[in-house]
Amino acid sequence: MPAQIPERYAFLGPEATFSEAAARLLPAAGALVPAPTVPAALDAVRQREVDGAVVPVESSVEGSVNATLDELIRGEPLVIAAEVLLPVAFALLARRGTVLGSVRRIVTHPVAEAQCRRWVAAKLPGAHITVTTSTAAAAAAVAVGEPGPDGPFDAAIAAPFAAEKYGLETLATAIGDYPDALTRFVLVTPPTQPPPPTGADRTSLVAFIRDDHPGALLEILEQFATRGVNLTRIESRPTRNGMGRYCFAVDCEGHVADARVGEALMGLRRVCADVRFLGSYARADRVTGSLARGTSNADFTAAEEWLGRLRSFGA
Amino acid sequence: MPAQIPERYAFLGPEATFSEAAARLLPAAGALVPAPTVPAALDAVRQREVDGAVVPVESSVEGSVNATLDELIRGEPLVIAAEVLLPVAFALLARRGTVLGSVRRIVTHPVAEAQCRRWVAAKLPGAHITVTTSTAAAAAAVAVGEPGPDGPFDAAIAAPFAAEKYGLETLATAIGDYPDALTRFVLVTPPTQPPPPTGADRTSLVAFIRDDHPGALLEILEQFATRGVNLTRIESRPTRNGMGRYCFAVDCEGHVADARVGEALMGLRRVCADVRFLGSYARADRVTGSLARGTSNADFTAAEEWLGRLRSFGA
Amino acid sequence: MPAQIPERYAFLGPEATFSEAAARLLPAAGALVPAPTVPAALDAVRQREVDGAVVPVESSVEGSVNATLDELIRGEPLVIAAEVLLPVAFALLARRGTVLGSVRRIVTHPVAEAQCRRWVAAKLPGAHITVTTSTAAAAAAVAVGEPGPDGPFDAAIAAPFAAEKYGLETLATAIGDYPDALTRFVLVTPPTQPPPPTGADRTSLVAFIRDDHPGALLEILEQFATRGVNLTRIESRPTRNGMGRYCFAVDCEGHVADARVGEALMGLRRVCADVRFLGSYARADRVTGSLARGTSNADFTAAEEWLGRLRSFGA
Amino acid sequence: MPAQIPERYAFLGPEATFSEAAARLLPAAGALVPAPTVPAALDAVRQREVDGAVVPVESSVEGSVNATLDELIRGEPLVIAAEVLLPVAFALLARRGTVLGSVRRIVTHPVAEAQCRRWVAAKLPGAHITVTTSTAAAAAAVAVGEPGPDGPFDAAIAAPFAAEKYGLETLATAIGDYPDALTRFVLVTPPTQPPPPTGADRTSLVAFIRDDHPGALLEILEQFATRGVNLTRIESRPTRNGMGRYCFAVDCEGHVADARVGEALMGLRRVCADVRFLGSYARADRVTGSLARGTSNADFTAAEEWLGRLRSFGA
Repeated sequence: MPAQIPERYAFLGPEATFSEAAARLLPAAGALVPAPTVPAALDAVRQREVDGAVVPVESSVEGSVNATLDELIRGEPLVIAAEVLLPVAFALLARRGTVLGSVRRIVTHPVAEAQCRRWVAAKLPGAHITVTTSTAAAAAAVAVGEPGPDGPFDAAIAAPFAAEKYGLETLATAIGDYPDALTRFVLVTPPTQPPPPTGADRTSLVAFIRDDHPGALLEILEQFATRGVNLTRIESRPTRNGMGRYCFAVDCEGHVADARVGEALMGLRRVCADVRFLGSYARADRVTGSLARGTSNADFTAAEEWLGRLRSFGA
Repeated sequence: MPAQIPERYAFLGPEATFSEAAARLLPAAGALVPAPTVPAALDAVRQREVDGAVVPVESSVEGSVNATLDELIRGEPLVIAAEVLLPVAFALLARRGTVLGSVRRIVTHPVAEAQCRRWVAAKLPGAHITVTTSTAAAAAAVAVGEPGPDGPFDAAIAAPFAAEKYGLETLATAIGDYPDALTRFVLVTPPTQPPPPTGADRTSLVAFIRDDHPGALLEILEQFATRGVNLTRIESRPTRNGMGRYCFAVDCEGHVADARVGEALMGLRRVCADVRFLGSYARADRVTGSLARGTSNADFTAAEEWLGRLRSFGA
Repeated sequence: MPAQIPERYAFLGPEATFSEAAARLLPAAGALVPAPTVPAALDAVRQREVDGAVVPVESSVEGSVNATLDELIRGEPLVIAAEVLLPVAFALLARRGTVLGSVRRIVTHPVAEAQCRRWVAAKLPGAHITVTTSTAAAAAAVAVGEPGPDGPFDAAIAAPFAAEKYGLETLATAIGDYPDALTRFVLVTPPTQPPPPTGADRTSLVAFIRDDHPGALLEILEQFATRGVNLTRIESRPTRNGMGRYCFAVDCEGHVADARVGEALMGLRRVCADVRFLGSYARADRVTGSLARGTSNADFTAAEEWLGRLRSFGA
Repeated sequence: MPAQIPERYAFLGPEATFSEAAARLLPAAGALVPAPTVPAALDAVRQREVDGAVVPVESSVEGSVNATLDELIRGEPLVIAAEVLLPVAFALLARRGTVLGSVRRIVTHPVAEAQCRRWVAAKLPGAHITVTTSTAAAAAAVAVGEPGPDGPFDAAIAAPFAAEKYGLETLATAIGDYPDALTRFVLVTPPTQPPPPTGADRTSLVAFIRDDHPGALLEILEQFATRGVNLTRIESRPTRNGMGRYCFAVDCEGHVADARVGEALMGLRRVCADVRFLGSYARADRVTGSLARGTSNADFTAAEEWLGRLRSFGA
C-alpha cells in the first residue's frame, strides 16, 4: 500500500460517516467517494471504478457486520488489504440555538438508537426517537428541518464530526452506553499479492464445509490448532441453500506467508468443500500474538530439512 | 403450551409482518400485540405485560437476527418455548389501479431491498428503491401515498399478506432471489419448566468463555462432541467488553431432559465462566437427529448402574 | 485394607524376590506364599486359596509387566487394592570366600542381565553370564553350586536381600545401569468395594475398543480429557484375535468415587465394547495430582444442582 | 532391497528359531548368523558385522517385543527396512521312539509354556513343564537328553521346523491356544534411504514427549489425525528417567515419501522433544489402508499450488 500514489476509495456514505473517517486514516487515501450501501461500495471495487472500498466489518458492541461479510463471501473475489480501528462515539447534534432541554424529536440510525436509548431516557425523558438509514442521514435531516412524526426533528444522534459537515451544534457528547466501543473497518481491494508480513498480522478467510456433518466445525478448528494458529474470530454465515447450511468466516493471527498459517490454510483447503482467502494484513492494534512452541518459521524450516534427510538418508 | 387457554403475545410489528404471521401459527395464540422493536417485544415479556413474544431469530438467507440474540443473551433471563418456520416470500404491492410498468418509486425494508434488487433491475430498470424500517411500514407508506424522493411512492416490497391488511393490490409475487427462503421465529417466555421432550427437540444456550484463550471454542465444542450431542448452530456474539471478547450462542439437538444433553450442559457449566440456558423446545421441522451409539437415555442409565456396582462391589 | 487381621498373600516367588519384599510392606501382610509365575499367583486369588497376590506391574526401566497386565485383562475379574513402589537394586552374590576378581561364570534373570551388562563388562571383562528364570533362582543355583556351561556358577546377580536368604556373600552392590530404578507392585484381590479415597489415588481399567477404527484411541483419551482426568499410563495389549486388534490398559489419577472419574468411566463404558475396572487405590508416591478448574466434586455437585433447576424451572 | 546381492543377516538364535525362518523369507537373505539376544543381533548391525538383523517386534498374542523396541529406541540409530509375518505354531517334539502317552518331563520357552499349558493339561495330565531360554534350546536339550528335575527331558514344545534341525520326531502339532497366532519380524539395518513406496506401506517412529503433561499423548495423536494418517499401533515405553516418564513407539500407515505422512512427521518433530524415525517399508500383509478424503499426494500438491497463488496473487 504505497502512500505516494493517492488512491481512490469508495466508502459507506453519505458523507461524515464513520466509514469516511476510517478511510481518511489510510496512508494512500486520495479521492473518497460515498456509496449508499456496502454492496454498492464493493461493487464499485469489482467494477474497477475505485481502487478500494472502506467498509465496517466488526463492532465491539454489535459484532460482525453481516452485509460486509456476506458480500466478501459471495460474488467476484476481493481481499482485505488493511484495517482501521475507530472509536465509535455518539453525539447529540441540533440546529444552532437549540437548547438541550427542549429536544423532543430525535432521529438516528437503529444501532445508535439502541446504544443511546438509556441516555435519552435519563436526560430527555419526554423525547421520542425516530430511526432512519444512517447517522449521517439523520444529521442531514435535522439540518434541513425534515418533518418528523409531529413536527420537524429537533436533534440527531450522530458521529461528533457530523456536526461540522452539516453545520450543526453539539448538545452532548459520549452519550452511548459503551464509551469504549470500537468499530473495525477494512480496506477491500481486488485480489493482489498481500502486503509483506509485519509480525503483527491477521488473515481472513471463509471455509465452506463439505457437508453438514456434526463434527465439521471441530475439524476446521483442529486444522488451526494443530499448527498453533490462534483464531481471533469465527462467524457462521448461511450459505443460502436452506436453513442450517453454513460457511464459517474466520480471522486468525499471522500472515499467509507464515509457514504455520500456510500449512493450516492448505489443511483447510483439503478438508473443506471450498476455502476463500480474504487477505493477510497488518493488525490495527499492532498486537503480536504469542507463538506456541514449535510454530515459528524457523521451526518449520528445521522440520522440513529433517524430513528431507529422512527421505534421502533414513536419519 | 396448553392450547386451551389463549395467551397474549407481543410480536415484532407493525401489523402484517412475518412475525405476526408466525405468531398466528402457535396453538395457544390469543391476543397479539405489535411491538416496534425486538427489545420492546422482549421487554414486554420481562414486564409480564404479555405471556410471550414472537420474534425472528434466524433467516436462511441473512443468518442470525442479532437483535434477538443479543436481547436473549443479556438482561433478565428468558427462555424459548416454541419455534415456527415460515417461508419468507416478497411481493410488489401498490394502490389499486397501478400498472406494473409505471412503477418508479419503490419503498421497502433494507433486507427486502437486498433480496429483490435483481428482480427490480430486470423488470423495472428505471425504478428507484427507498428503504424504511419494515416491510409493513413500507406497505403503509404506499397505502397513504407518503411522499418519496420525487413524488409519492408507487409500490412497496412487502409480505404477500400485507396486501389485504393495507388495502393494496399485488403486482407481482415471489420476486426475491431466494424463493425457498425460510425464517425461524421463536416464542420467548419467562423462565419455566421446559415442555416435555418430543424426540425431535432443540436446546438453545449461551456460553460465556472464562478468558479469551485460543482453545476456548474448541473446549466448548468438545463438551458436546464427547457426549454425542450435535450442534445445529453456533454464533459468536461480542460481550461488549472490548473488541475480540465473545460469547457463543449455541443450538444443539435434543432436550435438557435427555441425559446426553444434561451431561453436556453440566460440562459446559464447569468449564465456562457462565452458561445461560435459553430453552428446550420441539423443532419446527420435526427432524429427529440421529443418535450416536452409546448416547441414548438407556445407555446413560446402564452406565450409571454399572458405575454404582463398581463403587459398591468393585465389579 | 484393615491392618489388624493378617491376610494371606501369594507372591511371585521363589523366596527372596522383590515381590516378596513388596508384600512385606503391606500393612495387612500375614502369611506369604510363593507362586512360580504371575498367572499362578493370580489363579490362587481366583481360587480363593489366598486373600490376595503381590505381583510386579510396571518397572521404570522395563515398562509394563505384560504377564501381569494380560492376566488382569482376561479371566475371572480381579481388582487392585493397593500398590507398593520398590527400588530395584542389583547385587553380585557369591558363596563365602569367593574373590570378586575370580568370578567368571555368572547367572541371573534376563532383565537383570540387561541392566548389569555394562558393569560386568567393565569390572569383570572375562566373565560370562547365563540366564535363568528369576534372580532368586540364580542365587539358589549359586548356593548349591549348580553347574554352568563350563563349571559351577561363581556368582549370581540378584536382589541384595537374597544374600541372607541363600547364605551368600555380597561382592558388589548397585551394579545396575539405573541406580534409581523403581518397580511398582500391586496387591490383587477378588472384586470388592474399593478402599475410601485418600486424595492421592489411582484408578486402573482396561478399555476394549468396539472396532479397530483409526480414531478409537483418540476417542478414549477424549473421554478422560473432557472431564479433566489425567492419565498416568496407557498400554495397548493385543486382544489375541489377530494382529492389530488391541485393548488399552489405562491408569488415571483419582478414585472411582470421584465425580470426574465416575463420569469418565461411564463415558468410556458407553463408547467402548467393554470396560473392565481394575480398582481404585492409594498411590504409593502420595502425589496429589493437580485438579483442573471445574473438575472438583464440589464443581460437579454445583453443576448437577444447576441442571436440576433448569429441568424444573427453566433457569 | 535388491535380491541379486545376497546379504548377511543376524537373527535371534539359536538355529531353528522363528526368527531364522523369518529371515529365510527375505529376498536378499544370504548368510544367516545366530545371535544370542536381540541386543546382540542389533549390535552386530551397529558394528557393521552384518548387513541387517531379523528380530521379532510384535506378536498377535503377546504384543510388542519390548527388547526389540527398547533397542531401536536407544543407542545408535537403526531403521526397519522390511517386515515378515509368520504364523507361530507349536509342536511337541521328542527323540525317535518316544510314545506320546509316556511324556512326563517337557521343556520349552515361557511364552510357549503359557500358550500350550491347556493342551498339556488336557492331553498329558501328569506331565511337568520346565522352562528354558528359547524353544530351540529346549529342542536341543531334548536331543542331547539333558537332565530335567527328575530325569532326562522327554519332549520339547518348539517350532515344527525344529524337528528336522535337531533330529527329533513330531508327536503333536498345533498344540497352542491360538492356532492363528502371528508374529511380526523386522529386518533392521543401518540408516539408509527408505525403499520406494509400494502403496501399502508402514512407517515406524518413536516420539519423545517434551514434558509429562497430561495432554501430551492427545497432542501426538492429533498430529496424525489432522493429516488423515492412521495409526496401526502405539506403545508407551519408559524413558528410564523415572517412573511415569514415557516415549511412544508408533506405527502408522503410509510412507515417509507420502505427503500426509511427511507433514505429520514434521508436526511431531515440532511439538515433541525428539522424534526418532525407524523406517518406512512395505507391509507384509499388503493391506492398502483407506485414504481419507483430501489426503492423497495429489490433494497435497493441489493445496500447495493454491497456497502459492494466494501468496503471489491473493487469489
